[in-house]
Amino acid sequence: MDTNHLQQLLEQVRSKSVSVHDALQQLRTLPYEDVGFASIDHHRSVRQGFPEVIFCEGKTKAQVTAIARKLLKTSRSLLATRVQPDMARALTRAIPKATYHKEARIVSVQPSQKSRRGNIVIVTAGTSDIPVAEEARITAEVMGSCVQTLFDVGVAGLHRLLDRQKVLHQARVVIVVAGMDGVLPSVIGGLVDRPTIAVPTSQGYGASFGGLAALLTMLNACSSGVGVMNIDNGFGAACLAHRINLLGE
Amino acid sequence: MDTNHLQQLLEQVRSKSVSVHDALQQLRTLPYEDVGFASIDHHRSVRQGFPEVIFCEGKTKAQVTAIARKLLKTSRSLLATRVQPDMARALTRAIPKATYHKEARIVSVQPSQKSRRGNIVIVTAGTSDIPVAEEARITAEVMGSCVQTLFDVGVAGLHRLLDRQKVLHQARVVIVVAGMDGVLPSVIGGLVDRPTIAVPTSQGYGASFGGLAALLTMLNACSSGVGVMNIDNGFGAACLAHRINLLGE
Amino acid sequence: MDTNHLQQLLEQVRSKSVSVHDALQQLRTLPYEDVGFASIDHHRSVRQGFPEVIFCEGKTKAQVTAIARKLLKTSRSLLATRVQPDMARALTRAIPKATYHKEARIVSVQPSQKSRRGNIVIVTAGTSDIPVAEEARITAEVMGSCVQTLFDVGVAGLHRLLDRQKVLHQARVVIVVAGMDGVLPSVIGGLVDRPTIAVPTSQGYGASFGGLAALLTMLNACSSGVGVMNIDNGFGAACLAHRINLLGE
Amino acid sequence: MDTNHLQQLLEQVRSKSVSVHDALQQLRTLPYEDVGFASIDHHRSVRQGFPEVIFCEGKTKAQVTAIARKLLKTSRSLLATRVQPDMARALTRAIPKATYHKEARIVSVQPSQKSRRGNIVIVTAGTSDIPVAEEARITAEVMGSCVQTLFDVGVAGLHRLLDRQKVLHQARVVIVVAGMDGVLPSVIGGLVDRPTIAVPTSQGYGASFGGLAALLTMLNACSSGVGVMNIDNGFGAACLAHRINLLGE
Amino acid sequence: MDTNHLQQLLEQVRSKSVSVHDALQQLRTLPYEDVGFASIDHHRSVRQGFPEVIFCEGKTKAQVTAIARKLLKTSRSLLATRVQPDMARALTRAIPKATYHKEARIVSVQPSQKSRRGNIVIVTAGTSDIPVAEEARITAEVMGSCVQTLFDVGVAGLHRLLDRQKVLHQARVVIVVAGMDGVLPSVIGGLVDRPTIAVPTSQGYGASFGGLAALLTMLNACSSGVGVMNIDNGFGAACLAHRINLLGE
Amino acid sequence: MDTNHLQQLLEQVRSKSVSVHDALQQLRTLPYEDVGFASIDHHRSVRQGFPEVIFCEGKTKAQVTAIARKLLKTSRSLLATRVQPDMARALTRAIPKATYHKEARIVSVQPSQKSRRGNIVIVTAGTSDIPVAEEARITAEVMGSCVQTLFDVGVAGLHRLLDRQKVLHQARVVIVVAGMDGVLPSVIGGLVDRPTIAVPTSQGYGASFGGLAALLTMLNACSSGVGVMNIDNGFGAACLAHRINLLGE
Amino acid sequence: MDTNHLQQLLEQVRSKSVSVHDALQQLRTLPYEDVGFASIDHHRSVRQGFPEVIFCEGKTKAQVTAIARKLLKTSRSLLATRVQPDMARALTRAIPKATYHKEARIVSVQPSQKSRRGNIVIVTAGTSDIPVAEEARITAEVMGSCVQTLFDVGVAGLHRLLDRQKVLHQARVVIVVAGMDGVLPSVIGGLVDRPTIAVPTSQGYGASFGGLAALLTMLNACSSGVGVMNIDNGFGAACLAHRINLLGE
Amino acid sequence: MDTNHLQQLLEQVRSKSVSVHDALQQLRTLPYEDVGFASIDHHRSVRQGFPEVIFCEGKTKAQVTAIARKLLKTSRSLLATRVQPDMARALTRAIPKATYHKEARIVSVQPSQKSRRGNIVIVTAGTSDIPVAEEARITAEVMGSCVQTLFDVGVAGLHRLLDRQKVLHQARVVIVVAGMDGVLPSVIGGLVDRPTIAVPTSQGYGASFGGLAALLTMLNACSSGVGVMNIDNGFGAACLAHRINLLGE
Repeated sequence: MDTNHLQQLLEQVRSKSVSVHDALQQLRTLPYEDVGFASIDHHRSVRQGFPEVIFCEGKTKAQVTAIARKLLKTSRSLLATRVQPDMARALTRAIPKATYHKEARIVSVQPSQKSRRGNIVIVTAGTSDIPVAEEARITAEVMGSCVQTLFDVGVAGLHRLLDRQKVLHQARVVIVVAGMDGVLPSVIGGLVDRPTIAVPTSQGYGASFGGLAALLTMLNACSSGVGVMNIDNGFGAACLAHRINLLGE
Repeated sequence: MDTNHLQQLLEQVRSKSVSVHDALQQLRTLPYEDVGFASIDHHRSVRQGFPEVIFCEGKTKAQVTAIARKLLKTSRSLLATRVQPDMARALTRAIPKATYHKEARIVSVQPSQKSRRGNIVIVTAGTSDIPVAEEARITAEVMGSCVQTLFDVGVAGLHRLLDRQKVLHQARVVIVVAGMDGVLPSVIGGLVDRPTIAVPTSQGYGASFGGLAALLTMLNACSSGVGVMNIDNGFGAACLAHRINLLGE
Repeated sequence: MDTNHLQQLLEQVRSKSVSVHDALQQLRTLPYEDVGFASIDHHRSVRQGFPEVIFCEGKTKAQVTAIARKLLKTSRSLLATRVQPDMARALTRAIPKATYHKEARIVSVQPSQKSRRGNIVIVTAGTSDIPVAEEARITAEVMGSCVQTLFDVGVAGLHRLLDRQKVLHQARVVIVVAGMDGVLPSVIGGLVDRPTIAVPTSQGYGASFGGLAALLTMLNACSSGVGVMNIDNGFGAACLAHRINLLGE
Repeated sequence: MDTNHLQQLLEQVRSKSVSVHDALQQLRTLPYEDVGFASIDHHRSVRQGFPEVIFCEGKTKAQVTAIARKLLKTSRSLLATRVQPDMARALTRAIPKATYHKEARIVSVQPSQKSRRGNIVIVTAGTSDIPVAEEARITAEVMGSCVQTLFDVGVAGLHRLLDRQKVLHQARVVIVVAGMDGVLPSVIGGLVDRPTIAVPTSQGYGASFGGLAALLTMLNACSSGVGVMNIDNGFGAACLAHRINLLGE
Repeated sequence: MDTNHLQQLLEQVRSKSVSVHDALQQLRTLPYEDVGFASIDHHRSVRQGFPEVIFCEGKTKAQVTAIARKLLKTSRSLLATRVQPDMARALTRAIPKATYHKEARIVSVQPSQKSRRGNIVIVTAGTSDIPVAEEARITAEVMGSCVQTLFDVGVAGLHRLLDRQKVLHQARVVIVVAGMDGVLPSVIGGLVDRPTIAVPTSQGYGASFGGLAALLTMLNACSSGVGVMNIDNGFGAACLAHRINLLGE
Repeated sequence: MDTNHLQQLLEQVRSKSVSVHDALQQLRTLPYEDVGFASIDHHRSVRQGFPEVIFCEGKTKAQVTAIARKLLKTSRSLLATRVQPDMARALTRAIPKATYHKEARIVSVQPSQKSRRGNIVIVTAGTSDIPVAEEARITAEVMGSCVQTLFDVGVAGLHRLLDRQKVLHQARVVIVVAGMDGVLPSVIGGLVDRPTIAVPTSQGYGASFGGLAALLTMLNACSSGVGVMNIDNGFGAACLAHRINLLGE
Repeated sequence: MDTNHLQQLLEQVRSKSVSVHDALQQLRTLPYEDVGFASIDHHRSVRQGFPEVIFCEGKTKAQVTAIARKLLKTSRSLLATRVQPDMARALTRAIPKATYHKEARIVSVQPSQKSRRGNIVIVTAGTSDIPVAEEARITAEVMGSCVQTLFDVGVAGLHRLLDRQKVLHQARVVIVVAGMDGVLPSVIGGLVDRPTIAVPTSQGYGASFGGLAALLTMLNACSSGVGVMNIDNGFGAACLAHRINLLGE
Repeated sequence: MDTNHLQQLLEQVRSKSVSVHDALQQLRTLPYEDVGFASIDHHRSVRQGFPEVIFCEGKTKAQVTAIARKLLKTSRSLLATRVQPDMARALTRAIPKATYHKEARIVSVQPSQKSRRGNIVIVTAGTSDIPVAEEARITAEVMGSCVQTLFDVGVAGLHRLLDRQKVLHQARVVIVVAGMDGVLPSVIGGLVDRPTIAVPTSQGYGASFGGLAALLTMLNACSSGVGVMNIDNGFGAACLAHRINLLGE
């Protein structure tokens, strides 16, 4: 249930097209709905600007499908992340209007009329970092932000990045996705004056320790103004970037 | 040299009140100035919106004082962080208009007429986290942001926080500073819809491992939209918050 | 062999319905029984209030089945944990009265007449933490405790928890199960005055490091009175909670 | 303000010996009191059974003294932990009825008439673990629990422990404090059927990594029913033990 | 080529039953034999008392088989460790007199007439630790030591161990194999006055971190006189124990 | 596009056999070529002496094949590392002149006339370290260096190494590849006066922690003049060795 | 109380030169003596071959002095380790016959007539490792073993070690002490066929992580038959070596 | 004793200006000289191109002075690293021709006539990294290499570096010294085609973990051809760079 939906309901009460009793019935499930294995937070949209998102790892297909159905009863959009192909099949079969974004591992339902705003630029150091960047891109777009991407511009070929500084300077907020040495956010943080969000990825081997090396690099970035997300957390980066992007309206 | 200073110089060249030769002399040092032990980045203000900041750890008093003097030749403000008391004495003796903020471990020079904008709310979980919060506050204020603070509102007494949600909702961006279990950003991230910056502190003992526990908690925050800084990095949090705050203008 | 069984035997000796020689025969295996690959501890029930439990990881089907049969010779209940589906099949085939609790990964035999006592409340932060909570629930119930559950009430939607504080206040002891940031025990520890047991789970990714992040959060909990278990150790939490619960009788 | 104090006030209102206006004045500070650097939680006693405790590390003498004075306005007891000698001097000078327990690093005020209840047994593996055990002992006694101690009974001389099992069996709850290999809780957990709380200490060198080795040992204890605290956290162990001990009343 | 073999050859030279030229031919390959992917160390038996052992992890079936054949040309015994079932099949097919010890993951050839000496006692904490103990047992026996075993005598049931102290006191050297909390070597080290070798195993979950917890426990053992091996290194423990055992002859 | 190629083009412009317009067309793609998922760095050969290399982990077969084709348009050689068998099949099918080096996990195209120079000696401690050594050998040879190898000469049989010191002394630069204890570079660094590059491998188990033990050993090598690469990074070692080798021309 | 002392007492009882009552008085304190802060283990000499040793870290001067005096009532020798200079002064003042070995940080009392047996060879890689080696040497000598030393023979100058192999071959057991890369035990383990005990030291910097690097190297030693002690644990190495040395009698 | 010295001696023997007996006397100490606490390696110069270097941490003033004197008997140059001011005083008093380089923490004796060769460029990211860079510079110069330096050119102001690429391209080998995020070697490795040696420093705080973050960044450098040294190991970097530099002669 998003804010529009809530306001609409209250106006229907005022105009008497909905009885107080029926409104109460609807509002009772507002804070959350207990389905045994989950307490669905219908109120999140009002509190945080976007409905509850389903993080699918560790959940069964039956659980995810049930939660998705409950959420769609009070909201017009849906976002499920970390969706493996077979769960995607189950989910899109249950909810035909949902779309599976394979590289981003996302299933989403998106209100068609939503116009996107602002400008988030998402940059990756390498080709292997693209899935995390795509998770961020789809998330930000479903939430309502415009996104531009610059892929594979890591510092091993610095001119690839310097050449495209103009795109960076157009951003309201920049998301930089990098694995291995995780060096790119430090360099970009030194080039732009916009809020920069760094996302380490688990790409690499040996002493990358599953993304730990990139994470530490980013936390110690000499360039100021860089906030860091968990390893591979494209979704979280998009949430933060979207909130920042909205401030520019 | 900030943007105003640069524009002024160029206009003086156009109006012929400054010769091309003299302007060149001034501009030659613009990108950086090599003083042997340091390459002072006078250009940073143009590129990033604020002059180079002196991080004092690992530098000698002579080095810091020399860098500060060079910076003040082309800039009207100064920010030196991680200043121990005896370095503060040396610095304020050399630069009489500089002020020492002891709890924040900062020495600053601030142009008096600067009016502060927007609203950054800085929250701490405990009393022991205040020095890091103060580093953030002074930094943000010197850069030109308004700051409100809520200290000692950790989750051991949750009502202290819930009671003051109103202050949180007024923020454009929230900085949450917490040591030990580092739990507060997760809770605040679930209450507000504003960009939230989490700063772990080294407060704690035993399995806090110098702030590592709080850092990991924050990186794994279940609430979305939380960006994380290095342990005790109040300065960096303020840089990022200030950049975000400016977007709201 | 539980205490009742032992007392009964001694009374039979006194009443001469069992000869001293036969009693000795039975008692000789009391401390433990050596079956080559295992020293089965029949005495544990007398010493610790519950018979030896079979932890199945790293054991073969043949070993687990043999130990289970030996244990049931001197005890009326059985608890085998970390049971994979194919081991469960072998075990329930060998011991028809045993039940497989799939989500909890437990195979148990339970004396039907046992009435449950007290009140243990088990809480999870998310849906993905339920398997660990179920391991705790079945364990506590087989041992003889009453259990109530509150699932998916993490701090991303704090009202879901605050709404149900009443259930928490009814508990004699609370078990809180949480992965990712592991924040929930800190919050609950600040709300209730009952002994609280925190169980980190391996749910999460990246810098959760297989549950390490949640573990450290819990060890550093600012709220006092929280004891911590190993990652995913629902069984151990139930043992401790059951012992505490019994004190309330 | 403890529950007795609160009840008394309300009865005074009913009996009209205190005006509603004055009662309100007192109750207004109940939830917490904002003194700038701290939000003092006067309500904690009602919510958690014991007033707010002052953790002194990272706080200045002025801060600790001010918080202590505020707390004593609404409570008859006081507990300040991790008190270094010079802070103890400042604190006992400011609050003459306060006592400094040097080995336990605690300053406390204790209502004289309080009778202690139940039985907590505190065990240490070595002589060097005594300071942490003393922190637990004083804390538990100030809160109102009876405490027995067994010091220096580590497994290098197992008979020292086996000899005194009787003391262990009298406990309602056992606290085991051990550094280096942290082995003692596993052994005691296998001997008794009472809730056991394990506290690793930072005693040791080399691969003890400041208590990490003992912490991991305890988290992996093969004996079930052992809850673990942060390294050196005698205070937290006492809080949990006291809560458990009260259940036995 | 063992010492006997070498002495025999030299005596044949002296007695002229082998020409100098032929002896040289044989001795030339003595130090090592280069087969491209391996430098086979035929001299090890003379230098260290036992021929080179083949550690099979990371080697191909072809490599292991080739090395084994080369070794058997100058030695009468063979020991290959960490042998997976399909490599065992290849190896026993190529070398028919070789035996596969499945639980120990060892393939060995053993001179029949060898009589075993001394007494090594191998103890495990749990049933799951047996494979590592078996690797130690087979290794020590192939090398020529007598071995006794005590399995599943962990401290959760301390009487199982205390009861069998007599076996421990008969040992010349004790190998203690334990996973999870790794507590057993500390306890045994306090009971016996014989050299004790501790082998942590990777048995456990969560904060056992693949055997790290047990390893640290053992390195910090309060009982003196305990030497520690790498995690799961039953082979290495047997080598050291065998060398110690020989000293008792 | 390598330097020869570039020089040739410029000479063709001078001799007018290529029009300025056509040359520009070719040079425009020089810095990099944007194919959406990758920014191919054609300029790298000029800047760094060897064309861009394709690191295949984390990339799809379609991506790798597309990048390889683009690279071969401006370069005569190709190097793709970390190639799994099925990707190798796809790649060699798409580029028939490419060769798959299975043990080295490399697919390469090599200009036939290239004569190799200098002398790089690659040493391994064990047979299991050979794949990493082979990755280094193929890489160095494709780049144009001569390579000699010494395999399986670890310190367990020190004479195998001492015997072959002569080969080491002929090297311009030595690459030492070792897993487990990673001891070999320290020993070789003490024997030769040539630049030595140490490559830890992930060979080992238990406390080798995936190569971390060997990595730390090498970083702490008491012998001076040893540079360390990431775990299993045979490719990087060859790049550095090749650059050093060229200095000796 | 050592075994001789005990036997003597029993013979005095048999010969009636000591009354049963007086013998009982003496024997009553045999198992341990409770002095409040310590349970002194007088029985250890009988059980483990040497009286209880005082590890001084974390104990006060008063505690150490009191324990030492109690121990000397039933034993003729004394060993206190990790003794700082001022504690040494207090201890030698209280017990005039005690000697302070400064480099070894040991205070000892040694029965003059004791003849030393066997042969333990202690080797160090560097000069900085000598204090740990000295702790081992004094400990072993007080216990009754003969010790030879080889200092500063690390692999950076391998000939220094190879030259003195003869000393190594004379040993019954070898202790190898090394910091930084911890390589020496691997090399020595490959040269000798005697039990080898490796002691990592905290010597080093950066990625030695306080001895962790050396510890991991030793645990992964490719040479078989090497047992590892905690970092800087010269005392423990001597205990184990002494027990092994005795087997050779 | 360097190679020249050795050749000279042999020629004196041939020309009979030195008797065989006297030459033997001198040569006998050649391999090493045993002074009890140290085995001085006079042969290192012949084997490795430079005499033994004294690493002073963990050694006493008396030990360092004695070793220095012994070394100067057979060598004309001396290098002592990690020299604290008071040890420097003792050393320069004992050896008047020695010089103390304070920032580099080095005491050296250098033959005046030595001409320096080649070109090593040493770069630092910040001012605080200069001491490590100075250790490298003095070491390389004493060994006979020419050194150029570029200090404080980190990526926060990338133009400072790009501007001075020319200096980088003149180098035979580049040493890059950086703390905090350790990003600079990745960037420089992408700009130059010369062997690059990365030295992480312990500069930083919080999640820099004493240089670990920078170390991991460098080990994972996406730019190929970068070899990594231990944290703060300016000396080792210089040894390797000097060896590489000599190849260019």
